[in-house]
Amino acid sequence: MTAMDSHDLSTTDVHQVTTGPIMGSHKVYSEVQTPEGLTLGVPRRRVELTNGSHFDLYDTSGPYTDDTADIDVHQGLTRTRLDWALDPVNGSVTQASYAKAGIITPEMRFVASREGVTPEFVRDEVAIGRAVIPVNRNHPESEPTIIGKNFLVKINANIGNSAVTSSVPEEVEKMVWATRWGADTVMDLSTGKRIHETRERIIRNSPVPIGTVPIYQALEKVDGDPTRLSWEIYRQTIIEQAEQGVDYMTVHAGVLLRYVPLAARRVTGIVSRGGSIMAAWCLAHHEESFLYTHFEELCEIFRGYDITFSLGDGLRPGSIADANDEAQFAELRTLGELTHIARSHDVQVMIEGPGHVPMDKIAENVRLEEESCGEAPFYTLGPLTTDIAPGYDHITSAIGAAQIARHGTAMLCYVTPKEHLGLPDRDDVKVGVITYKLAAHAADVAKGHPKAREWDDELSKARFEFRWRDQFHLSLDPETARSFHDQTLPAEPAKTAHFCSMCGPKFCSMKISQDVRRYAEENGLDTVEAIEKGMADKSAEFAEGGNRLYLPLVD
Amino acid sequence: MTAMDSHDLSTTDVHQVTTGPIMGSHKVYSEVQTPEGLTLGVPRRRVELTNGSHFDLYDTSGPYTDDTADIDVHQGLTRTRLDWALDPVNGSVTQASYAKAGIITPEMRFVASREGVTPEFVRDEVAIGRAVIPVNRNHPESEPTIIGKNFLVKINANIGNSAVTSSVPEEVEKMVWATRWGADTVMDLSTGKRIHETRERIIRNSPVPIGTVPIYQALEKVDGDPTRLSWEIYRQTIIEQAEQGVDYMTVHAGVLLRYVPLAARRVTGIVSRGGSIMAAWCLAHHEESFLYTHFEELCEIFRGYDITFSLGDGLRPGSIADANDEAQFAELRTLGELTHIARSHDVQVMIEGPGHVPMDKIAENVRLEEESCGEAPFYTLGPLTTDIAPGYDHITSAIGAAQIARHGTAMLCYVTPKEHLGLPDRDDVKVGVITYKLAAHAADVAKGHPKAREWDDELSKARFEFRWRDQFHLSLDPETARSFHDQTLPAEPAKTAHFCSMCGPKFCSMKISQDVRRYAEENGLDTVEAIEKGMADKSAEFAEGGNRLYLPLVD
Repeated sequence: MTAMDSHDLSTTDVHQVTTGPIMGSHKVYSEVQTPEGLTLGVPRRRVELTNGSHFDLYDTSGPYTDDTADIDVHQGLTRTRLDWALDPVNGSVTQASYAKAGIITPEMRFVASREGVTPEFVRDEVAIGRAVIPVNRNHPESEPTIIGKNFLVKINANIGNSAVTSSVPEEVEKMVWATRWGADTVMDLSTGKRIHETRERIIRNSPVPIGTVPIYQALEKVDGDPTRLSWEIYRQTIIEQAEQGVDYMTVHAGVLLRYVPLAARRVTGIVSRGGSIMAAWCLAHHEESFLYTHFEELCEIFRGYDITFSLGDGLRPGSIADANDEAQFAELRTLGELTHIARSHDVQVMIEGPGHVPMDKIAENVRLEEESCGEAPFYTLGPLTTDIAPGYDHITSAIGAAQIARHGTAMLCYVTPKEHLGLPDRDDVKVGVITYKLAAHAADVAKGHPKAREWDDELSKARFEFRWRDQFHLSLDPETARSFHDQTLPAEPAKTAHFCSMCGPKFCSMKISQDVRRYAEENGLDTVEAIEKGMADKSAEFAEGGNRLYLPLVD
Repeated sequence: MTAMDSHDLSTTDVHQVTTGPIMGSHKVYSEVQTPEGLTLGVPRRRVELTNGSHFDLYDTSGPYTDDTADIDVHQGLTRTRLDWALDPVNGSVTQASYAKAGIITPEMRFVASREGVTPEFVRDEVAIGRAVIPVNRNHPESEPTIIGKNFLVKINANIGNSAVTSSVPEEVEKMVWATRWGADTVMDLSTGKRIHETRERIIRNSPVPIGTVPIYQALEKVDGDPTRLSWEIYRQTIIEQAEQGVDYMTVHAGVLLRYVPLAARRVTGIVSRGGSIMAAWCLAHHEESFLYTHFEELCEIFRGYDITFSLGDGLRPGSIADANDEAQFAELRTLGELTHIARSHDVQVMIEGPGHVPMDKIAENVRLEEESCGEAPFYTLGPLTTDIAPGYDHITSAIGAAQIARHGTAMLCYVTPKEHLGLPDRDDVKVGVITYKLAAHAADVAKGHPKAREWDDELSKARFEFRWRDQFHLSLDPETARSFHDQTLPAEPAKTAHFCSMCGPKFCSMKISQDVRRYAEENGLDTVEAIEKGMADKSAEFAEGGNRLYLPLVD
C-alpha cells in the first residue's frame, strides 16, 4: 500500500488554490518531541495584538496559510506522517489497537498538544472508543485531529461535484478554502464524472482527514441502477478508496430490509442518498443488505489501513414531522450492534445522526446514541430545527447543531445556505464553515472546555477597549468583520477611534461605561458598601436641605 | 389626545416605500364580528398551492402587501382602531384594566383570531399580566399583536438613525421593510437629528406596535450630557412621545446607584446605552435614579394612553464573561419590584433581557425572570452565545434566541449581521428579521404550539413531492429560495422537475424514496410483519438453493 501509486497528478489541468495567512495572523508551530525521536510541528494561528500580547488559535488550514511553505498542488503536500508509522500491534495498525495496548502514538501526542490535554488522556479516550483519530496510513499528508465528546467540537464540510456542476480544480480549491476557514474534516461526496481523480487530488492536497460515501462511486460503476449493486462491486470500490487514503467512510449498514417499510409511511420518506440506494437494493432483491451481512469483512479491510467507520444514518428524518420515529431509532440500535463488532476488530467508529429535529427532541438523540453505541463519537448533520426557511438552513441547522453539540455530539456536518436548493459555491462553503465554527465554539463554551472561553474574553476585552483591529483579527472571519465596519466608517482613523459606528462619537455606552468605571475608582465607589455609605451621607445632607431630593438640573 | 396633531407630514420630502404582495402569496382578511357591532379584518398571507389547496400564514406586513390598498405615506395608514375605543373602566383605558374587569376588547378578539385561540384565553392571560397587547390609543393605525409565553413567539426589529448615518425616508422604509418580512414590533432607536419627525412618520405608517427608548431623545435635549438630565426633562419627553402614539417604552428604572459598582469590575462594563446614561447620572449626582424614584408617576402617565412598559435591562451583560452576574440579577430583582407596582396601576409590563449568555446559562435567565417578575413577558436581545463571530452575530444570537424562546421568552429583539460593527442597511434588516422569524418558529415548534408545525409539514410535503414553486412560496423568504435554485438550475422546467439541483436527474434520494414507497405498496410490503414473512419465505427458497444467500449480480 502506498499513497501515490494511483494517479499522476501532473497530467491534469494547472490550477490555483488560495494561499497566504488569514488577515491579522500568521502560522506558528509548537514543537512536540516524541520518544521515537520525532519532532512534531503542531500548527497554530497566531494573532498579534496591538497591546503587545498575542493569542493563538486552533488551526486547520495546513501549509496553505504558511508564508514560508512551498505549495504545488501537482506534487501534493509533504507526506510528513510517513515517518510516524509504528510497528503493527497484533497485526493491526489502528489507533484503537495502539491505544488498547497502552501505546501512545505520535498522532496522539499531536492531537494532545492541539487540544491542550495530556497524551495519556487522548490514549484512554481512543482506547474505549469515545474518541477517534481518523488517519488512513495512505494519507500521510494530513495533520491528525481527534473527534470525541471530551475534546473541542469539530466540524465537517462537504464538497464534491455532481452530474450537474463543478470540476476537479474547483473541488480542490473548495477543500483548501473550507479548511482555511476552519473545517476539521472534509467529505468528498462527488457523484459525477472523474470521481477517482477528484478524490486523488483532494487527498494529496488535504491537511485534514477526508471522508467519503463509497456507495456513491459504486453506484456510478453500475450506471446508477441500485439493483445492480453487489458486495463485490462495493468491496472493490472500498479498496480503491482505501488505497488512495480516505480516512473515514460512511457505510449505511444499518438500513435493514425490515426497516424499509417503516420509512415508507413518512412525510419525507428516505432522504439519505446512501439509505435510499440500500433500501432500493434490499426491496428489489428481497434480501438483507450486503453491507450488514458482510460487515465483518469490511472491518478487516478497514483495519488494514486504519480507516474509521462513519456508520451512516440512512433512515435519518428529512423533516420535522419524521424526527425521532421508529425507522430512525431502529436503525440506530443496529448501528450500536455494528459498533461493538467494529470495536472487536480494533476499528475506530463514529455514528452519524440527523438531520431534521425540533429542539425538544434533540437531547433524546444524543442519549439514545450514547446508550446504543457505547459513546462512539456522534457526528450529526445539523440538525435543522425547522423546515420553513430554505435559503437559511445554515441557520436553522446551526441552532440545532449548537444544542446537539452541547449535549455531546463530537462533530457537526455543516449545512450551507444552498441546502435543499442547489450546490454550494465558494461563498456558500465559507458561510457554512464559519456558521458551524461558531456553533461548535458556542457548545465548547457551554460545555466548559477549559480553553474555549479565553477566546471570547480576549475578543470582548478588545471590544471594550476600542481595539478595533484586534477585534477584527480575533474574529472567526476578520475580513467580513472589517468590511462591515468599513461600510459605516471607512476612514482609517475610525479603526483606532474610541467610539463605534452604531452611535457616533457623542453617544456611546462603552465610552460612558469607561467613564463610570474611572469615576467610581477615583471616588472610591468600588463596592456596594462604599456606595451605600455615600448615599447615607448624602441623604443626611438632603434632609438638612429640606428633603428636596431631586433638584432640577435644567429648568 | 389625538394622533395627528403634532406634525404635518406633507411638508417633508416625498419618498417611496416597498409595496405589493410577497412572491406567491396574497393578502386575505378573516372577518371577526364583535358584540359592539364592529367587523374586524384580521390579515393573513395566503399561499395558493399548485395542488389546489392553500395555506395561510400569520401576517405582520399591513396594507403594504395588499394589492387593493391605497398607500400614501404622507397621509399615513387608516386609523382603523379609532372606532374600537371602549369607555374607560375606573378611569383607565388599558387592556389590563379591561381584562381584569372581565371585558373582552376588540383588540383581544383581533389577536385571538390571529393566534387561533379563544378571546377568553387572551383576556385571562392579559388580566394576570402573562401577556401584553401594546396599543397606545394614539396609534390607531396599528393591528394589535399579543406578546406572551403562551402565544406565538414574536420578534422585534430595531431601526433608527444616528448622528452618523441615515435619513427620515430611509427609516420609514426600514419599518415597512422589516414588517414585510415578519417583524411583529419595531423599535425606533433614533439618536441623531429630526428624532421627533422620524418617529412621527414611522408611527403614522406603522401597522405594528412601535417602541422607543425615551432617554435617548431626552439626552439629545441636554446636548448629550447625561449629568444634565432630570425627571422634568424626561417627563416632558415621555409625554411628547405618548402623544405621538408610541406603544411601548423602554425604561431603565432598575439601574440603581448601588448596583453601578457591580458593573465597574466587568469585562465589558455597561453596554446598554440607557443603562450607561443612568449610571453616569446616578454617580454624578450621587442620587438614586429619577426613573426609580418617580416610577409611580410614570405609571400614571402610561395608564392614560395604554403604553406598555418594557423595563430595560441597563445592566445586561455585554460579553459571555459577564453573563448571569450579580449586577444583572440585582437589576432583575428590582425590575420585579417595579413590575408589581406597574400592575397595581393596571399598566402592562414586559421585561427586557440579555444580551450575551452562554448556552448553559440561558435557562436560568428565564427562570429568574419568571420568578421575580410574575411571568411578565420576557423580551430578550438574542442572546449571543459566543463573542467570537462579529459579522455573524445574527447567527450567534439566533442560537441563543431559539433556546431562550423555547424556555418561555415571549419576544426576541433581532440582531443583524452588523451588530457591534455598524448600522444595518436594508439587506441587514431583512436578514435579521428572517433569521429571527426562523428562530421564533423553531421555538414555537419545540413548545408544541398547535399551529406551528403545520407550516413545516406543508413545506416538507411540497419538498417531497417536488412541488418546487410551493416549496419556494411556503418559505420565509421565497425570493431567496427561488434565486438560490436558479443559480444551479435556472431553466423554467426545473421548477417542475422531479429531481433537484444537488444530485441531478439520475441520482436522487427523494426519487428513489418515492420508488421505494410505490414498490412497497405494490408488493404489500407495508409493515414489518409483511417484510419479515417475505424474508422467511425467501430464506426457505435460498436454503433449498444451497444456502448461497448472496448471488453476485454483476461479476
